[in-house]
Amino acid sequence: MNILLTVAYDGTNYAGWQMQKNAMTVQQRLGEALSALLKTEINLTAASRTDAGVHALGQKASFKIDYLPIPLKKLPQVINGCLPDDISILDATAAADDFNPRFDAKCKQYHYQIYNAVCPNPLTARYSAFIPRELSINKMAEAAAHFTGTHDFSAFCSAGSSAKTTVRTVFSCDVVRENGFIIIKISGDGFLYNMVRIVSGTVVYAGLGKIDACCIPSIIKSRNREKAGKTMPPQGLILMEVLY
Amino acid sequence: MNILLTVAYDGTNYAGWQMQKNAMTVQQRLGEALSALLKTEINLTAASRTDAGVHALGQKASFKIDYLPIPLKKLPQVINGCLPDDISILDATAAADDFNPRFDAKCKQYHYQIYNAVCPNPLTARYSAFIPRELSINKMAEAAAHFTGTHDFSAFCSAGSSAKTTVRTVFSCDVVRENGFIIIKISGDGFLYNMVRIVSGTVVYAGLGKIDACCIPSIIKSRNREKAGKTMPPQGLILMEVLY
Repeated sequence: MNILLTVAYDGTNYAGWQMQKNAMTVQQRLGEALSALLKTEINLTAASRTDAGVHALGQKASFKIDYLPIPLKKLPQVINGCLPDDISILDATAAADDFNPRFDAKCKQYHYQIYNAVCPNPLTARYSAFIPRELSINKMAEAAAHFTGTHDFSAFCSAGSSAKTTVRTVFSCDVVRENGFIIIKISGDGFLYNMVRIVSGTVVYAGLGKIDACCIPSIIKSRNREKAGKTMPPQGLILMEVLY
Repeated sequence: MNILLTVAYDGTNYAGWQMQKNAMTVQQRLGEALSALLKTEINLTAASRTDAGVHALGQKASFKIDYLPIPLKKLPQVINGCLPDDISILDATAAADDFNPRFDAKCKQYHYQIYNAVCPNPLTARYSAFIPRELSINKMAEAAAHFTGTHDFSAFCSAGSSAKTTVRTVFSCDVVRENGFIIIKISGDGFLYNMVRIVSGTVVYAGLGKIDACCIPSIIKSRNREKAGKTMPPQGLILMEVLY
């Protein structure tokens, strides 16, 4: 059986999704809980290798098992009883044997949350970047719109990426005020290493008046990382949804 | 000078507001930061002695100082630079010499946040109680309305209270769906020890169908703690506002 899980986590205390030698990751914590519960070694494959400190509400991860000793419907609640408060399984379904949550993903949606006020808010600090300076939402939205379409996004990729191509398609990139945050909502067929955080940093530069929205196409064309904005901190980023 | 601060904090890592011998509290952390910054020992008096794990967005605290070496307007930003992410000063104003944030308070507003879903949400777990069972908001609102008015709230007070009288006036008690939470919003002239968490637990009992809303007046009249609902956990409680 190939089981597909919808996973939510607060990434604050993890060195990202992907297993590492000397740091605790979400993959390891969840894998250990599943292995102990199902009494066999469980190897998880995820849709996105989220970075250290990045959160998820709709990560997808799958694992194969010969026989599931628990009814599939009850799996989330049973696993959640064995997980810490910062990881939760929201759903479990059966997938085709050859289904791969990473390579079969058609669309991924991320939110980048900004808390824009004079003083920081301790109740939102874990899930947003704090920007005390004045931000123009209109200018941010104008800049964001330029990212849609199919482009070579090399200028929005950190060094260390192992991607074969730097061409990606962004389906939508919007800026809204919601739940006390300014949120940059971006969806696409995939994202390069740190791409969402660099796109967000560039949108923020437009909102601060540091760059003009109409410069975005030429920054994309330059394929030069130095032309784009700074990489925003991880705690504002949430993987919201993966569609197949 | 008597300086009045508006204080926000994530109470997760603190043993409440009030100074203690063997545990870190918000009063101690903030007092130490102010003492170091202002180079004199600062003694803080707060409107509410929030319990361990309880949060605040509108706590009020005052301190006296002969001479303030920083412009009052700049005080919040300067102190925030010396505070951890889980405490923030939102405002600083000058108050009358005889002003006391605790005894002069006319109205305090608390929110009790509930996350009601089948599976827990790691991004809201620090700031809400998780209830996976079906809750009727209508029944909760009906129960909540019975708490308004001036009553002897002994049935809604934990042992260990040092209050002289157990009579309090609740100005409003509403239940709303907001930001993905069910929120019990309660305001009054003051609250007994654990009163908001016990009132919330009783409102939840009504929402679960464990008690009928029309029983609330007789529970109040009984003055018997055992008739009321359970004390809800601290992480759902937020001190929102104190009015003078």
